[in-house]
Amino acid sequence: MANELRGRRVAILAADGVEQVELVQPRQAVEDAGAQTELVSIRSGEVQAMNQDIHPADRFPVDREVSQVNIDDYDALLLPGGAVNPDNLRQNAAAVAFVRDFVNSGKPVGAICHAPWSLVEADVVRGRTVTSFPSVRTDLRNAGGNVVDQEVVTDRGLVTSRGPQDLPAFNAKIVEEFAEGRHAVPG
Amino acid sequence: MANELRGRRVAILAADGVEQVELVQPRQAVEDAGAQTELVSIRSGEVQAMNQDIHPADRFPVDREVSQVNIDDYDALLLPGGAVNPDNLRQNAAAVAFVRDFVNSGKPVGAICHAPWSLVEADVVRGRTVTSFPSVRTDLRNAGGNVVDQEVVTDRGLVTSRGPQDLPAFNAKIVEEFAEGRHAVPG
Repeated sequence: MANELRGRRVAILAADGVEQVELVQPRQAVEDAGAQTELVSIRSGEVQAMNQDIHPADRFPVDREVSQVNIDDYDALLLPGGAVNPDNLRQNAAAVAFVRDFVNSGKPVGAICHAPWSLVEADVVRGRTVTSFPSVRTDLRNAGGNVVDQEVVTDRGLVTSRGPQDLPAFNAKIVEEFAEGRHAVPG
Repeated sequence: MANELRGRRVAILAADGVEQVELVQPRQAVEDAGAQTELVSIRSGEVQAMNQDIHPADRFPVDREVSQVNIDDYDALLLPGGAVNPDNLRQNAAAVAFVRDFVNSGKPVGAICHAPWSLVEADVVRGRTVTSFPSVRTDLRNAGGNVVDQEVVTDRGLVTSRGPQDLPAFNAKIVEEFAEGRHAVPG
């Protein structure tokens, strides 16, 4: 990787319960490619990360509250997993609107593991080919998604992966898609 | 409460991540009414309970593995919440079949908080009036459920509540419904 994301601003939207490795590794990957990242959450302060969903891990400082950001502030959106994280996000109207507006804008979005629940809540899965952690797939199908079981799948700038084991493929693909920039808006 | 559940056998199906108060309090309520309970899970050993989803709480011994039980072994089914708990259950084919068979048999079932995700996975929500934790409601609607926002709702023996704050109402209603026994099978 050279400097293909130089000057790009990436929002990482996460809340308590985020799976630590899915926050840290993709952030490192896009920063290594030159991007600037901000951790955006539903509250100021810190986000409590977890390992394997039930083992508390580190806490990460929140850069901005989602109610105070706009999709114009960023070039790409990263949604890490962890079951409790999207469970928190989907209860927050500003978080759901941010995800919906981002996907509908055609700007690239990466979502891994349980993160596609936020896509379900934003109703942006309909007609898209996506993957996720196994437990989320019925909810994706019921939301109108075309669900596949692959390490990484891309549909018009929306990159999804199944879980931590897919991080190398996910990280490479989000760097590629984030570098491509805005895609044709579906519809 | 008198002894209205005397001789009744209640399966409590739960996995790691179960919300402790939603395991302990309903179990106490049905045992106080005379029922015998068994903690059924996807593995032998112990189940790790949580407080507010991300704070590890106590561990509870598993009585039986779900792959080795039958709905004929029980008169009623209790499904506690906690986000990670149904997330684990819905990945286990025996657990999903157990829930599906139980609901379809007309025997009474109580599900609180995030537990209705297991009902979604078993595809037994279609045409039913249910409630749940707020984050689960879009998934219930997408699965064909008629979702309401009430402390407790009962539809042909299926009792659902929103979360820990509803435990008094939930506990009273499951004792009542479990005492009534098998309901007319829907469909």
